[in-house]
Amino acid sequence: MEQGKKILVTGGARSGKSAFAQQMAERLPGPRAYLATAQILDDEMGERVARHQAQRGQAWQVTIEEPYALNTSLRQATSHYPVIMVDCITLWLTNILLSNQENPDTVLQKVDQLITSLPGCISTIIMVTNEVGLGIVPENPLARQFRDLAGFANQKLAAACDTVYLVSCGLPLKLK
Amino acid sequence: MEQGKKILVTGGARSGKSAFAQQMAERLPGPRAYLATAQILDDEMGERVARHQAQRGQAWQVTIEEPYALNTSLRQATSHYPVIMVDCITLWLTNILLSNQENPDTVLQKVDQLITSLPGCISTIIMVTNEVGLGIVPENPLARQFRDLAGFANQKLAAACDTVYLVSCGLPLKLK
Amino acid sequence: MEQGKKILVTGGARSGKSAFAQQMAERLPGPRAYLATAQILDDEMGERVARHQAQRGQAWQVTIEEPYALNTSLRQATSHYPVIMVDCITLWLTNILLSNQENPDTVLQKVDQLITSLPGCISTIIMVTNEVGLGIVPENPLARQFRDLAGFANQKLAAACDTVYLVSCGLPLKLK
Repeated sequence: MEQGKKILVTGGARSGKSAFAQQMAERLPGPRAYLATAQILDDEMGERVARHQAQRGQAWQVTIEEPYALNTSLRQATSHYPVIMVDCITLWLTNILLSNQENPDTVLQKVDQLITSLPGCISTIIMVTNEVGLGIVPENPLARQFRDLAGFANQKLAAACDTVYLVSCGLPLKLK
Repeated sequence: MEQGKKILVTGGARSGKSAFAQQMAERLPGPRAYLATAQILDDEMGERVARHQAQRGQAWQVTIEEPYALNTSLRQATSHYPVIMVDCITLWLTNILLSNQENPDTVLQKVDQLITSLPGCISTIIMVTNEVGLGIVPENPLARQFRDLAGFANQKLAAACDTVYLVSCGLPLKLK
Repeated sequence: MEQGKKILVTGGARSGKSAFAQQMAERLPGPRAYLATAQILDDEMGERVARHQAQRGQAWQVTIEEPYALNTSLRQATSHYPVIMVDCITLWLTNILLSNQENPDTVLQKVDQLITSLPGCISTIIMVTNEVGLGIVPENPLARQFRDLAGFANQKLAAACDTVYLVSCGLPLKLK
């Protein structure tokens, strides 16, 4: 795998997509940055983040917590870290959608901005996302809206990436 | 790709399955018919259909709106259009299920009738469907019933088709 | 396909995963045991199980009903049946989770015990499971808990198996 590639890893909940992305990152020469989009809003989330951080161990030089300004954080990190893992796109979309009553179109504009700046990032960037559209239509209108948003964002990101994997049962299927 | 093939394209919501099917159709020599199974029941749906129709542009000679009698419409269209795209099977199943209090077995009989008449259609027929069974079991009994129906219908159609794709993030995985 | 392999077949509801697993089993030299984890709690379930049993026909020498002690049943069956199909892992997880107020960690320990004893089973074992994590996050906390449990269990089992398939529309994608 050449350096500087942009890689998207999608999959369902507990599909092993993050572990797969992490192993891929750890096979590349570092230093490595882990860019977490999760917001620590309660103790449960805090413990979960701490556990994940411990699991990553010494192979990762820094954890950057950035729930909103993913674009800015990537541009700052790219000059220091040849490998950056973003975990995950779906939480980032959720954070933007829920803040400031953003509408899905505005959120998709931020996805477009991210895509525009990806080629300027010299690091290998491995982005983890969720596939959420393979169940029955949700009754909750917000869930339907988010499902559409995540699907559109994943299509845009996949088109902009060099390589795309779908992970199920911890095993990758190469889509691109 | 030879003409006259029967092709099934499945995927989740906003997976890019229709765009993939459309691009496949536009690479084949026309004229082309777009067979829409959506019913325009409100303004929102009307705008959406108009937007999709504008996106298809000049490559499509006709849009046939047929929520119920898919079989009859296909047989009529096949003598005029070498390429027919059906978008989508899942809405057609929904329309039949909701009309006249049909039960799932009757709906599956209509799927069987469609399959029986497919070999007689000389056109390439590209059918778009939804994979809806990869989430948690829905609490709503009607949703469970529809999930079963869609799954059985997709199995039957896939067995009858020459080629089957699963689309995720706008990218196809060839299943058959 | 060599004998003694451990095979996992995952897929959505009505994806044709059990039929695919059954056909795979029937191509191997028997005798064959069908290990059903479903509990017959009402007439509807009773009829469904009877219908499935009739469909399996003469190719299957025995149906073992075991909702809980999968490990013990496999060890007993392996000396008599060179081919054992387990249908399905997800129901087995549900049965354990709902009995005795087990928590997910205890259930995952039972998955670990199953994995530990798999290499000692000389039979080919074909296990059917469900992928349930590809929809929107469920609102029901128990559904979220089960989704996590099933995902973790599938990852563990897939890592321990020789071969893993994802089935959609009755068609298999080989994951491993």
